[in-house]
Amino acid sequence: MKAVVYQGPREVTVKDVPDPSIQSPNDAIVRITTTNICGSDLHMYEGRTSVEQGKILGHENMGIVEAVGDAVDRIKVGDRVSVPFNIACGTCRNCLTGWTSFCLRTNPTEGMDGAAYGYANMGPYDGGQAEFLRVPYADVNLLELPPGTEHENDFTMLSDIFPTGWHGTELAGLQPGDRVAVFGAGPVGLMAAHSAMIRGASQVFVVDKETDRLDLAGKIGATPVDFSAGDPVEQILDATGGRGADCGVEAVGYQAHDPSGQEHPELVLDNLVKVVRSTGGIGVVGVYLPQDPGAATEQAKQGRVAFDYGTFFSKGQHMGTGQCPVMRYNRHLRDLIIAGRAQPSFLVSHELPLTDAADGYQHFDNRDAGWTKVLLRPAA
Amino acid sequence: MKAVVYQGPREVTVKDVPDPSIQSPNDAIVRITTTNICGSDLHMYEGRTSVEQGKILGHENMGIVEAVGDAVDRIKVGDRVSVPFNIACGTCRNCLTGWTSFCLRTNPTEGMDGAAYGYANMGPYDGGQAEFLRVPYADVNLLELPPGTEHENDFTMLSDIFPTGWHGTELAGLQPGDRVAVFGAGPVGLMAAHSAMIRGASQVFVVDKETDRLDLAGKIGATPVDFSAGDPVEQILDATGGRGADCGVEAVGYQAHDPSGQEHPELVLDNLVKVVRSTGGIGVVGVYLPQDPGAATEQAKQGRVAFDYGTFFSKGQHMGTGQCPVMRYNRHLRDLIIAGRAQPSFLVSHELPLTDAADGYQHFDNRDAGWTKVLLRPAA
Amino acid sequence: MKAVVYQGPREVTVKDVPDPSIQSPNDAIVRITTTNICGSDLHMYEGRTSVEQGKILGHENMGIVEAVGDAVDRIKVGDRVSVPFNIACGTCRNCLTGWTSFCLRTNPTEGMDGAAYGYANMGPYDGGQAEFLRVPYADVNLLELPPGTEHENDFTMLSDIFPTGWHGTELAGLQPGDRVAVFGAGPVGLMAAHSAMIRGASQVFVVDKETDRLDLAGKIGATPVDFSAGDPVEQILDATGGRGADCGVEAVGYQAHDPSGQEHPELVLDNLVKVVRSTGGIGVVGVYLPQDPGAATEQAKQGRVAFDYGTFFSKGQHMGTGQCPVMRYNRHLRDLIIAGRAQPSFLVSHELPLTDAADGYQHFDNRDAGWTKVLLRPAA
Amino acid sequence: MKAVVYQGPREVTVKDVPDPSIQSPNDAIVRITTTNICGSDLHMYEGRTSVEQGKILGHENMGIVEAVGDAVDRIKVGDRVSVPFNIACGTCRNCLTGWTSFCLRTNPTEGMDGAAYGYANMGPYDGGQAEFLRVPYADVNLLELPPGTEHENDFTMLSDIFPTGWHGTELAGLQPGDRVAVFGAGPVGLMAAHSAMIRGASQVFVVDKETDRLDLAGKIGATPVDFSAGDPVEQILDATGGRGADCGVEAVGYQAHDPSGQEHPELVLDNLVKVVRSTGGIGVVGVYLPQDPGAATEQAKQGRVAFDYGTFFSKGQHMGTGQCPVMRYNRHLRDLIIAGRAQPSFLVSHELPLTDAADGYQHFDNRDAGWTKVLLRPAA
Repeated sequence: MKAVVYQGPREVTVKDVPDPSIQSPNDAIVRITTTNICGSDLHMYEGRTSVEQGKILGHENMGIVEAVGDAVDRIKVGDRVSVPFNIACGTCRNCLTGWTSFCLRTNPTEGMDGAAYGYANMGPYDGGQAEFLRVPYADVNLLELPPGTEHENDFTMLSDIFPTGWHGTELAGLQPGDRVAVFGAGPVGLMAAHSAMIRGASQVFVVDKETDRLDLAGKIGATPVDFSAGDPVEQILDATGGRGADCGVEAVGYQAHDPSGQEHPELVLDNLVKVVRSTGGIGVVGVYLPQDPGAATEQAKQGRVAFDYGTFFSKGQHMGTGQCPVMRYNRHLRDLIIAGRAQPSFLVSHELPLTDAADGYQHFDNRDAGWTKVLLRPAA
Repeated sequence: MKAVVYQGPREVTVKDVPDPSIQSPNDAIVRITTTNICGSDLHMYEGRTSVEQGKILGHENMGIVEAVGDAVDRIKVGDRVSVPFNIACGTCRNCLTGWTSFCLRTNPTEGMDGAAYGYANMGPYDGGQAEFLRVPYADVNLLELPPGTEHENDFTMLSDIFPTGWHGTELAGLQPGDRVAVFGAGPVGLMAAHSAMIRGASQVFVVDKETDRLDLAGKIGATPVDFSAGDPVEQILDATGGRGADCGVEAVGYQAHDPSGQEHPELVLDNLVKVVRSTGGIGVVGVYLPQDPGAATEQAKQGRVAFDYGTFFSKGQHMGTGQCPVMRYNRHLRDLIIAGRAQPSFLVSHELPLTDAADGYQHFDNRDAGWTKVLLRPAA
Repeated sequence: MKAVVYQGPREVTVKDVPDPSIQSPNDAIVRITTTNICGSDLHMYEGRTSVEQGKILGHENMGIVEAVGDAVDRIKVGDRVSVPFNIACGTCRNCLTGWTSFCLRTNPTEGMDGAAYGYANMGPYDGGQAEFLRVPYADVNLLELPPGTEHENDFTMLSDIFPTGWHGTELAGLQPGDRVAVFGAGPVGLMAAHSAMIRGASQVFVVDKETDRLDLAGKIGATPVDFSAGDPVEQILDATGGRGADCGVEAVGYQAHDPSGQEHPELVLDNLVKVVRSTGGIGVVGVYLPQDPGAATEQAKQGRVAFDYGTFFSKGQHMGTGQCPVMRYNRHLRDLIIAGRAQPSFLVSHELPLTDAADGYQHFDNRDAGWTKVLLRPAA
Repeated sequence: MKAVVYQGPREVTVKDVPDPSIQSPNDAIVRITTTNICGSDLHMYEGRTSVEQGKILGHENMGIVEAVGDAVDRIKVGDRVSVPFNIACGTCRNCLTGWTSFCLRTNPTEGMDGAAYGYANMGPYDGGQAEFLRVPYADVNLLELPPGTEHENDFTMLSDIFPTGWHGTELAGLQPGDRVAVFGAGPVGLMAAHSAMIRGASQVFVVDKETDRLDLAGKIGATPVDFSAGDPVEQILDATGGRGADCGVEAVGYQAHDPSGQEHPELVLDNLVKVVRSTGGIGVVGVYLPQDPGAATEQAKQGRVAFDYGTFFSKGQHMGTGQCPVMRYNRHLRDLIIAGRAQPSFLVSHELPLTDAADGYQHFDNRDAGWTKVLLRPAA
């Protein structure tokens, strides 16, 4: 089959690789209909991780079940499914309490809980930017979708970024009526803003400097805040009579940078601590790494982030972090899409055949204007 | 009346000052029967705050209601009461949602939510290390106790450290059956451990290096961990078959130091991030400050704490912080004391007449062996 | 002043009565700008309660603060305010935990917790269908609104039915994405449906038989279910592929009746137990009474409701009940109105001068077509 | 193998039956070391259910894994395990949200969610009062225990009644410091009382009329209330200064009877509504049935329970019901047993060889004095 393979920093190629096969009675093989490029794929693409050469990338996958192992009795061949990016066993202590993003059994990497497809440090699993994907513990992981092709561009957001944005609002403790500050108008930030609107936020601020992304924020009912035009904290305080936000979402991560482009991993956390009111919550879904050899300072290389902790404590704020347990949300989000109450496809800017993946990676990595979200179609 | 007055770094004196009086129809005057010296009083005593000379100290107070204003209709003269250290209006947005520690109305200090008696930056209120104390919004703040003198040494923990220790376990998300790691065996840490046992923790580790405090931890059923005898994280991992703690409590604060005595404000947070399992919670009730001019590094002076944030995120942990809203817990804790199911008085090492306060401060500040908790008795 | 006074079954008159005055330092006097007739006023109007002759009715009130007592320091003369129907002391055990609808101090009636304005068994308080209203514990109870007259018809829903409908969804445990069944398309049912939509329900069924009310349900995005056209449970099961609702709201109460008009107090509960899936929640905000001398059966007279409890248990459902603690929700709902995200005024069918109150009561009690919600304007 | 087989009302025999075998790759076979007789087995024993003749009884099982299917990769042959009474698929919507007691896939009975071993209406599964037991979805369902034989009589409570009692306190919304009223001092009621003590209740009342059971309640720190000596509600009100209980647990079920022995299915619910304070919660784990042909009244035959709903609503109480999802609690409870903080074996009155099962059933059904809890040992 054809698959997108990591070759080295800023180099991916589409090449022929062996088809995946059933390896355990709990496996399924999914024929991919849509697979997306994720912002976190760029961490690998840019060479800032230890991902091995030859890895098939892609953890945002959906498709049709092609084959199942002997022990699979819920999911059937022919089912249309969304594949959560987390690979969960479904039976360990974390999975049983809904934390499938921290499965204790599927990732053999020392010291790491949680596995994913085609991802650095998250286990020996190939990704789904390919014609077929092997899915372990298929009955646990796969989410059934209505048959057909309707809502394909909405449903393809169910594997990662829609639940991840939603998780940001959940970690932040968002309550209906709240004012929310979302930092980052990339795909995850926009999904967090969309989620906040669906959940009944009274006002959602979205902070970024890219005009096209801020425009999208405005289109879904949020209030864009352009940080290249002035301190975003002051802009939000001004817009709220000094009260600030009730809670906030971090959708940027360790590569946060100032308007001049210099990285300051503490920058967004500092802003959130300032703009969120006392007792408020901060949900962190932007990625931070324990080690980052490519970072600018010695502290940052060790994953240390010297944000304004004293103010964080003095305001009695709380903070939740980490990768999203997709299964906690994807059923409800699917139902909202079917009911017409969520339309995450507003994000989609490009739909490419799989064979154009290298081109898609390059434009998306460049943050070229208008390249908000790229879908790949193996059958196109 | 006689009162304990702050004179300057490491100097308090007991002197005659005017009696407090009813200033608003919502006020009460309480005749103090017991008032404690708190570990956070030492921040002021040591001159590491901006507290003004002449301030009466003392925020851990209990006594008998001596007088009430015209609008006080719940609390009556003669009632025996505990006085929460927070001064709450009871009607602002934070108070109405149970966050009386972040009252929006009682502290006129710019940028600070929440007020307290006799405390730096927490409003113009005198403390209760004195014969009498003025209590604003008395119907809101005062907790009624059974008449008489029974349980005096238990009830006196209700104004601050018992609820504060409890709050640490609440912020940590403690569930019955959990293994908990409490860092710090000072009064708050020991109260957190006592709280965790009452709430059904399966095992409670308490980390410190002072033998007398570790002994107290052992007496209430916790497992003492002496960090001067080896890495506390490894000790706890060894004791739990590598699983670590389900959640943790920070009861040390920004003056955390290594066995050699050097301050490392990130030290305890780093240990908690390491020892708490993925998805676990960390409750921070040890105090961190937005500014600390006396700190060792430029970052620390600004309240920045460069802990291992990358690992915190990778493990999907969450963290709650801040001063305890005493009223959220003190009714239940009072009832547990009356029922004989909580005995926080195990902490008490010294009961002194108010006139010996200077001596008590000095010994407690020196961490002299056996000076765990000092009570002052104005009537003695 | 002029006020709406209860004279006996199906008889209210507008007459001159003495103006209210400040009786305690915590009181305020509010000049009423809008006061609504509530469905629960009809219980009194119809003579099915023990309300005394001469009582001023009206618990859905808003207006301008005319005077305050000496102890009131948050609310100011001239403030525009919403008056929650509950009268809360703000300092008892229930109030402190957010249950202001069950205040332990404001209602002297034996065995009843919770007080209200102008209501049977809920304390000696006159209502606000008048030019002025006395509000006890004004700092606790009053919700400040933006000055002016904007959103008057939305804000007037904040005193009772918008929070009450919202409370129904909260008691039901509604999660975003849920399918909800609301029984009753009276004002509270419609507010529950509006709330469910705001909170991100995927589908909201509203069951009634009155065409005008079902039309309103449709207009706010809900799915009307006409029970006069067939079993509502079967209609909802059919519409959901047999899955039923994830949770449900009871907005009818003890006077539930079948299409022929005969009362069956267990009818709606039975339908909810049937239509809500296993493990789902049921929020009951329709009123049930401990005694109902006017009921059809001996059991019903004693407040006993023989619903299908065996199935309730077998499905592992849960149920929350009771009057809404308005203050728990009204700040957030106010903010949603200001932000344009909630418009509860869609309910309003009639705006009458106070002097036309008797006419309004009669039409509303008759369920005359189109008389959905009646506002009274003392200044008109 | 030998197994306890239902023959008809009040008749069970131990007879030879075929050994169970692996039928699906997800199955395991467990060699039973201990299996208990449950109070709910008596519903079948007494002929008040539709359980078929020939069914092997027994849903409280533990033992050693003898064999596993090809897809079982977490649990290993030789593991010592507790078998939750619920049979869960682990992948349906209810299982994924922790409601394994209402699994949507394992029970083919029309209209019933949730399956169990050896139980009427809960699927075609044989019970474990036998030498061996087949366990479906073994990786999902089985709880691993430390090897050996230590704590056998404690661990055997993990399959049902300890979690079920705990669930009662959870459904009641028990908070530390609460006063709790548990109705019923049978095994489940005593486990609820034990759970409440572990979770930090300040006082636990246990209501029954059997002296031996009340004595056990006293031994674990609860306050026995003998309802044959007077109205239990008045006794609890007297003991609490009129305040009553903060929450309550129903551990009796539809066969509730008055001191004279006459069944009144509404009796215990009425008492709970009376004794629990306004806004309090009631957890119902005593069993109620949708149909009970053996009941005394027409209403009761249909599962209708005419309790005092009007007071329930007027007090704003809430109620949770249904079978316990054992997996939600059993890991934590196991850890509490290992840590010595829970000792549910205090209940055990008799340990019999499996061959004496008929005798055990008879004495237990008679409520013979001292027959509190009977364990069966297939290997004895």
